[in-house]
Amino acid sequence: MRDAPLRRRALAEAVGTAALVTIVVGSGIQATELSRDVGVQLLANSLATVFGLGVLITLLGPVSGAHFNPVVTLAAWFTGRRADDGLSGRDIAAYVPAQIAGAIAGAVLADAMFGRPPVRWSTHDRSAGHLLLGETVATAGLVLLVFGLARAGRDRLAPAAASYIGAAYWFTSSTSFANPAVTIGRTFTDTFAGIAPGSVAPFTAAQAGGAVLGLVLVAAIFGRPTPTPPDTPTVHGEPELTTPALP
Amino acid sequence: MRDAPLRRRALAEAVGTAALVTIVVGSGIQATELSRDVGVQLLANSLATVFGLGVLITLLGPVSGAHFNPVVTLAAWFTGRRADDGLSGRDIAAYVPAQIAGAIAGAVLADAMFGRPPVRWSTHDRSAGHLLLGETVATAGLVLLVFGLARAGRDRLAPAAASYIGAAYWFTSSTSFANPAVTIGRTFTDTFAGIAPGSVAPFTAAQAGGAVLGLVLVAAIFGRPTPTPPDTPTVHGEPELTTPALP
Amino acid sequence: MRDAPLRRRALAEAVGTAALVTIVVGSGIQATELSRDVGVQLLANSLATVFGLGVLITLLGPVSGAHFNPVVTLAAWFTGRRADDGLSGRDIAAYVPAQIAGAIAGAVLADAMFGRPPVRWSTHDRSAGHLLLGETVATAGLVLLVFGLARAGRDRLAPAAASYIGAAYWFTSSTSFANPAVTIGRTFTDTFAGIAPGSVAPFTAAQAGGAVLGLVLVAAIFGRPTPTPPDTPTVHGEPELTTPALP
Amino acid sequence: MRDAPLRRRALAEAVGTAALVTIVVGSGIQATELSRDVGVQLLANSLATVFGLGVLITLLGPVSGAHFNPVVTLAAWFTGRRADDGLSGRDIAAYVPAQIAGAIAGAVLADAMFGRPPVRWSTHDRSAGHLLLGETVATAGLVLLVFGLARAGRDRLAPAAASYIGAAYWFTSSTSFANPAVTIGRTFTDTFAGIAPGSVAPFTAAQAGGAVLGLVLVAAIFGRPTPTPPDTPTVHGEPELTTPALP
Repeated sequence: MRDAPLRRRALAEAVGTAALVTIVVGSGIQATELSRDVGVQLLANSLATVFGLGVLITLLGPVSGAHFNPVVTLAAWFTGRRADDGLSGRDIAAYVPAQIAGAIAGAVLADAMFGRPPVRWSTHDRSAGHLLLGETVATAGLVLLVFGLARAGRDRLAPAAASYIGAAYWFTSSTSFANPAVTIGRTFTDTFAGIAPGSVAPFTAAQAGGAVLGLVLVAAIFGRPTPTPPDTPTVHGEPELTTPALP
Repeated sequence: MRDAPLRRRALAEAVGTAALVTIVVGSGIQATELSRDVGVQLLANSLATVFGLGVLITLLGPVSGAHFNPVVTLAAWFTGRRADDGLSGRDIAAYVPAQIAGAIAGAVLADAMFGRPPVRWSTHDRSAGHLLLGETVATAGLVLLVFGLARAGRDRLAPAAASYIGAAYWFTSSTSFANPAVTIGRTFTDTFAGIAPGSVAPFTAAQAGGAVLGLVLVAAIFGRPTPTPPDTPTVHGEPELTTPALP
Repeated sequence: MRDAPLRRRALAEAVGTAALVTIVVGSGIQATELSRDVGVQLLANSLATVFGLGVLITLLGPVSGAHFNPVVTLAAWFTGRRADDGLSGRDIAAYVPAQIAGAIAGAVLADAMFGRPPVRWSTHDRSAGHLLLGETVATAGLVLLVFGLARAGRDRLAPAAASYIGAAYWFTSSTSFANPAVTIGRTFTDTFAGIAPGSVAPFTAAQAGGAVLGLVLVAAIFGRPTPTPPDTPTVHGEPELTTPALP
Repeated sequence: MRDAPLRRRALAEAVGTAALVTIVVGSGIQATELSRDVGVQLLANSLATVFGLGVLITLLGPVSGAHFNPVVTLAAWFTGRRADDGLSGRDIAAYVPAQIAGAIAGAVLADAMFGRPPVRWSTHDRSAGHLLLGETVATAGLVLLVFGLARAGRDRLAPAAASYIGAAYWFTSSTSFANPAVTIGRTFTDTFAGIAPGSVAPFTAAQAGGAVLGLVLVAAIFGRPTPTPPDTPTVHGEPELTTPALP
C-alpha cells in the first residue's frame, strides 16, 4: 500500500496526529479528574499513550509511514534524498501541515470531549534549561530508534516507538514531547499535558538538535547503508510497515 | 476454522461477550474494593480489559471473528454485503442476540462472584452531552481500527483492538463503551462499571453515529478495496484471524 | 526439543513452578512493604505475574510444555489419551510431584529473599462461597484458553496464558489461583499471597470443577479435533511451543 | 549485521548501557518527584524499564547482541569458547569497559536532565544478607533466560529479558540489579535508584554466583547443545537478534 496517493497519505498523517494528541491530552484530563497522586496521573497518561500510539503506528504505517511528527518526516527526507523511493519536497509540503493541523484538532477534540472550553492557551511554562536537555535526549532517542530499526531491516517493529515514548515520559525531565507538531497542538489546552506558547520555540529548537544527534548516532552505530535489491518480494497478507528511511 | 457451523460461531460470540463483560464489571468491583484512588481503580480496570480482551480475540477470532459487538457485526455485514464470503442476514440474526445475552450473563456472573445481588439496575447516569461525544469518538476509532486493519491485510493483528480500548478508557470522557451489547449488559450491575438504563438509548445512538463515521474514515484513508485472490494459501499451524471485513 | 528426556522435562516443571510461586509471593511481599493502597499492591502483583509467567512459558514451553499446573497436566493427559504423542501415566507421575515440590520451594525462597521466616503457615482464610465460584470461573477460563489455542493450532501463542492470569487477578473474586500446586505452595507463607491450609481442599475442588467446565467449553466451541499430518515440518530456528493438547 | 566491526559493536554496548541506566535512574527521579507512594514509584520505575529495555534489545541486538551487562558478556564468552563464532578475548576487552563507561555516563546524564548535581555518591546502603540472596536469584534467572532462549533457538525473543527484569524488580528483595556495570553506574547518583559504593563488591559477588548458578540450570534443563548447520539462511528483512550464546 506504499503507493497510496499523496492525498490519502496526508489524510492518514492528519488523522493519526490528531488521534495521538487526543490520546495524550484526553488521558491527561481524565487522570487529573480521577486521582490526586501525580505519579498515578502520569502512569495513566503514559500507558494510554503506549497502547494508543502503538495501535496508530500499526494501523496507519502501511499507508503513510505513520510519522505523525515533522522531525521524523524531515529526517526521512534527508536520509532518503538520494534514493529513488525517498520522500520528495512535495511530500514534505503535504505531511508537515497535515501533522500540525491534526495536532491542533486533536487538542480541541479532547477538550470538547471532557466538556472544557475547546481552546484555552496553556499556562504551563516548560522552559527551564534542564527540560530542554530532556527534550534533546528524548528526540535523539526517537530518531535513533526509528531510523536504526529501518537500517537494520526491522521496519515492521516500528510500533516499538510507542514503548519508547512510554519509557521516555518517565526518564526524561520534559516527559518527552519529541515532536514539534504535537508541541504546537498542546499549546491549545490548559490541562495536564499543555505547554505554554512561549515554550514552543525552545522546545522545537531542542528537538531539532536532538534529531541531528540521533542521525549521527544512527550512522555511527549502524554504519553505511547497504543497497537492497530493488524488488523484494513481500509475503502475502503481511505487508511491511512503510517506514521513513529506506535509503 | 472459518467454516465453523453457525451454532459454534454464535456460541463463541456469546461466551466471548460474556467473558468481556465479566472482565470489565468484575475488575471494576475488585478495584473499588481495594483502592480509594479512582485513578488506581481505572488503571486496574483498563489493564485487566487490555489483557483479557486481547486473549479473547486471540482465542475466539479463528472461530467467529471475535466481534463481541453488534456494531462490528453490522458494519461487517455492510462492508461485506457484495462479497461471496460476507456475513449473511442469518448470521446477524444469530450473532447479535448471542452478544446481548452473553453480555447480560457476564454482568450477572461478575456480581455473583463478588457476593453481590446478581441483578440490580445501575444508578450511574451517563447522559451528559460531552459523554456522548466521547462515545462517538470511541466507536469511530474502534471501527476505523478493525476495518482498517482488515483493509490493509493485517487481520492477524486484530488483538490490537484490546490495546485501543485500554487507551480509550482514558482518552474518552465516556471511558469507551463503544458496544451496544456491553452497554446493555452493564445496566444489570450497580457497581463501578454500571450504566443507568436511561442512558442506554443515547449511548447506542452515539455508537451508531461513531460507526458510520468510522466507516467513512476507512474509505477515505484506505481507499477502494482491491480484490484478493480467491484461494489464499495459509501457512500451516498459523491460521489467520477471521476478521469481519473481507470485501 | 519436544523429545527431551522425562528427567529434564520434570526439572523444567519444578523450576518453572518454583519461579512462578516466587514471583507471585515475592512481588506480593514487596508490594505490601512499599504501598498501603491495596489496589496498588495488586497492580504490582498482577503486572509482575504477567511479565514473569509470560517469560517462563516462552522459555520452558519448548522443553516440558510449561504446564506448571496439575490441572493442565491432567487435562492434557485426558485430551491426549488416545493420541500417540499424548502424555503417559509415567509423565503424570513425574510432572505433578515436580510441580508441587517446586511450588513449595518457591514460597520458601521468596520468604527467605525478603528476610522472613522461610515457613509460616498462612492465616489468610479464603473459603467463602463466592470465592469458590471465582476459582471455578478462573480455572474454566484457563483450561478453555490453553486447550482452545491448541485446538486452533495456535500453540505458539501459549504465553497469552500470562495475560489471562493478569486479568483474572482482577475479574475473579479469588484473585485466580487456578492451580492446585500453586495453592499448596502458597500455604507456606503468611504474606499477601498466602492461603490458609484449611482453604486448600475447597479451592482444589473448585479448580477441578472449573477444569471440567473448561473442557466442555472447548468441545462445544472448537468442535471435534481434526487429525493433523504426522510430520509437520517446523521452520528452522522457530520451534513451536510444546503445548499439552495435541490430539 | 552480526559481522559489524568491533568498533561499532562496542559503541552499541556503550550507548545501550548508558540508555539503560538513564532509563532506570531518570524514571526513578521522576517517580519520586511525582508520587509519595513508594509502590507507585516502583511501578513507574519498573514499567519504564520494561518498555525502554525491550526497545534497546530490539534495536541494538542485531549490532552487538545487546548484552549491556558484563555478566552476560562473560557467560557468552564461556559458553561459546569452543565455537568458531564465539566471543574472543579481544571482544571482552572492548565490551566490558564500554558497558561500565556507558553506565556511568547514563547516571550522570539522568541527574543532569533533572537539574541535579551530575555526580553525587549514593548513600543508599544495600548490603543486607537477604538482598544478596535476592541479587543471586535475579542474576541466575537472567542468565537462565538469555542462554536458555539461545539454546532453544528462540534468540529473536531476547526482548523477553525486559519483561523478566520488570518482574524481578518486584519479586526479588534487591529490585534486581543483576548487572555489575549498571551497579557501578548507579553509585554515581544519590537518588531513588542509587546504591552506595560500599555495596558494590557484595552485589557483584552475588551476581557472579548467580551467573554460575544460571549456567548450571541451563545445562540441566536444556541439555547438551546440538550443532547447527553452518549456513542457516535468514529470511530477508527479518534478521535474527545476535544473541550471546551460539555454541
